Amino acid sequence: MIRAYATKEANGKFEVIEYDPGALKADDVEIEVESCGLCHSDLSLVDDEWGVTQFPIVPGHEVIGRIVETGPAVTHLKTGDRVGVGWFSRSCLTCTPCMSGDHNMCPSVEQIAVGRPGGFGERVRVQASWANRLPDSLDPKKAGPLFCGGITVFNPLVQFGVRPTDKVGVIGIGGLGHLALQFLRAWGCEVTAFTSTGAKADEARRFGAHRVVDSRDKDALKAEAGRYDFILSTVAVPLEWGRYFAALAPRGRLHTVGAVSEPIEVQAFSLIGGQKSLSGSPLGSPATIRQMLDFCERHDIAPQIETMPMSRIDEAFQRLRDGKPRYRIVLENDF
Amino acid sequence: MIRAYATKEANGKFEVIEYDPGALKADDVEIEVESCGLCHSDLSLVDDEWGVTQFPIVPGHEVIGRIVETGPAVTHLKTGDRVGVGWFSRSCLTCTPCMSGDHNMCPSVEQIAVGRPGGFGERVRVQASWANRLPDSLDPKKAGPLFCGGITVFNPLVQFGVRPTDKVGVIGIGGLGHLALQFLRAWGCEVTAFTSTGAKADEARRFGAHRVVDSRDKDALKAEAGRYDFILSTVAVPLEWGRYFAALAPRGRLHTVGAVSEPIEVQAFSLIGGQKSLSGSPLGSPATIRQMLDFCERHDIAPQIETMPMSRIDEAFQRLRDGKPRYRIVLENDF
Repeated sequence: MIRAYATKEANGKFEVIEYDPGALKADDVEIEVESCGLCHSDLSLVDDEWGVTQFPIVPGHEVIGRIVETGPAVTHLKTGDRVGVGWFSRSCLTCTPCMSGDHNMCPSVEQIAVGRPGGFGERVRVQASWANRLPDSLDPKKAGPLFCGGITVFNPLVQFGVRPTDKVGVIGIGGLGHLALQFLRAWGCEVTAFTSTGAKADEARRFGAHRVVDSRDKDALKAEAGRYDFILSTVAVPLEWGRYFAALAPRGRLHTVGAVSEPIEVQAFSLIGGQKSLSGSPLGSPATIRQMLDFCERHDIAPQIETMPMSRIDEAFQRLRDGKPRYRIVLENDF
Repeated sequence: MIRAYATKEANGKFEVIEYDPGALKADDVEIEVESCGLCHSDLSLVDDEWGVTQFPIVPGHEVIGRIVETGPAVTHLKTGDRVGVGWFSRSCLTCTPCMSGDHNMCPSVEQIAVGRPGGFGERVRVQASWANRLPDSLDPKKAGPLFCGGITVFNPLVQFGVRPTDKVGVIGIGGLGHLALQFLRAWGCEVTAFTSTGAKADEARRFGAHRVVDSRDKDALKAEAGRYDFILSTVAVPLEWGRYFAALAPRGRLHTVGAVSEPIEVQAFSLIGGQKSLSGSPLGSPATIRQMLDFCERHDIAPQIETMPMSRIDEAFQRLRDGKPRYRIVLENDF
């Protein structure tokens, strides 16, 4: 049996449950959780914002831990290995996306905390393909958020060929955005942070922004017209989309990883003249996660975190609801 | 003086005007018009749909003709050369887009028929950079529509790296779409035509479509889910955008060259899961026009046209208003 924190209804308090994970699948690993980051999508799931939550739910998908058991088909990982695990937990490995390296777009990809228990517990299981060995030089206390927040913003830089000569903007300087700034600075780009929180301007510069633009200031946004090769939105709220399209240079791309519920309205003319694109992307594939970990090692990139014991999970969720974390909460296993 | 056909008000009848083109600019050429294709955007301009029309207006931007005079700075073209001219008539040649080969995205790019007279006349002038020599093997009577309709749909195939292994859909089988089908068939792709006109199904297959889908049939659209690497919309009317996003495979792109006025509504979730894009593009650069002409020669690609004498321009516009051309009207200079 595995002990874990679950809520039994939307917005409910957490309580300790015990669940039977059954027999270990041949290609699964079981991981003893050391810590697990708290992501905004945990809150969306716990609050059933997307209407997909199955209660009781054990959230948590930024796991760092050590392998305690491997299924008989697992050959590339062994007991004792320290690994990280993110949003995805299993893919078929045989469909065309999987065969193309796009395991993250497998039509039957499974997600942690949607139908299977997540990382806010003693142990967690995932398919071995989705457990990536953590390089020794990365601080395991901080590394958890790389496996969701980190890879979510690293992935589009790889997928859409962002170049060191590009001028790039990041909208929203939170759990994802503060990592995007670090990645882009190390990538060689000119980096601009768009934030509605004036108090974050100095920190944004510390994370790597060359420039900071107040996203509440319409005139300031207007003055950015034609500047950006790539704008990465990390927020899940409606934006002044027209202004951001205008801020793109010819061939520019506005890319969202924020799952805003309201439709994004696009004028065809705002795309046609300058050959512009709007796009989105999910978390990265295992291969891209490995590229990210390597990049973090080489450039000394890490999330800025606040740690709390896992037993204070209710308090941690409330802090996230209040928008207070700077910039990611990591819960340490104190079972 | 140059005689040409102009309208003096929105929806007005054409009449012959004479205008003084002034001194020939150093880098301009003057072209004696042989023929000029009639594009849907001529209709939009003449009807002042976009609110940018300056009356009196001489439309026409699919010109084939012979150079009768060259400015003193023109070295690569000479009197007697047969050239084609499209929507663009001048770019600065020195800005970063021009210096990058993206003359079509020059911030000061000038358009024929917007502020300068177009091709429905005896002669027309453009900057020499925008007059491309017509290869001898292409039929000059048919070639005009390549310079607007053709390059508009050829350009995105080049710009967005459409590959011969891709499954591609074309929405709208008209002046642009019937050329897109030919290009894509020769490109090596699996080609599907989406049309709301059942009578065009057989012709779409003749132009190169392997498959035809009735775009009015919601169930048929739904059955296409996940199929396409690239969908090219050539129409300027609102579509069932959600269905077309669903029809994209992972990494798929929905691309519009149709300047639909109503905003395109996009759900972020419909982009994120499959790393999908929405984009638009203008007509191509001179270099891409040359690639297109070369491709048309090699693959025997030409518009299907109806010819009329230019003096019947009112009748031609009415035929276009009624959606009757199969698939492009070309007006022959009978001044």
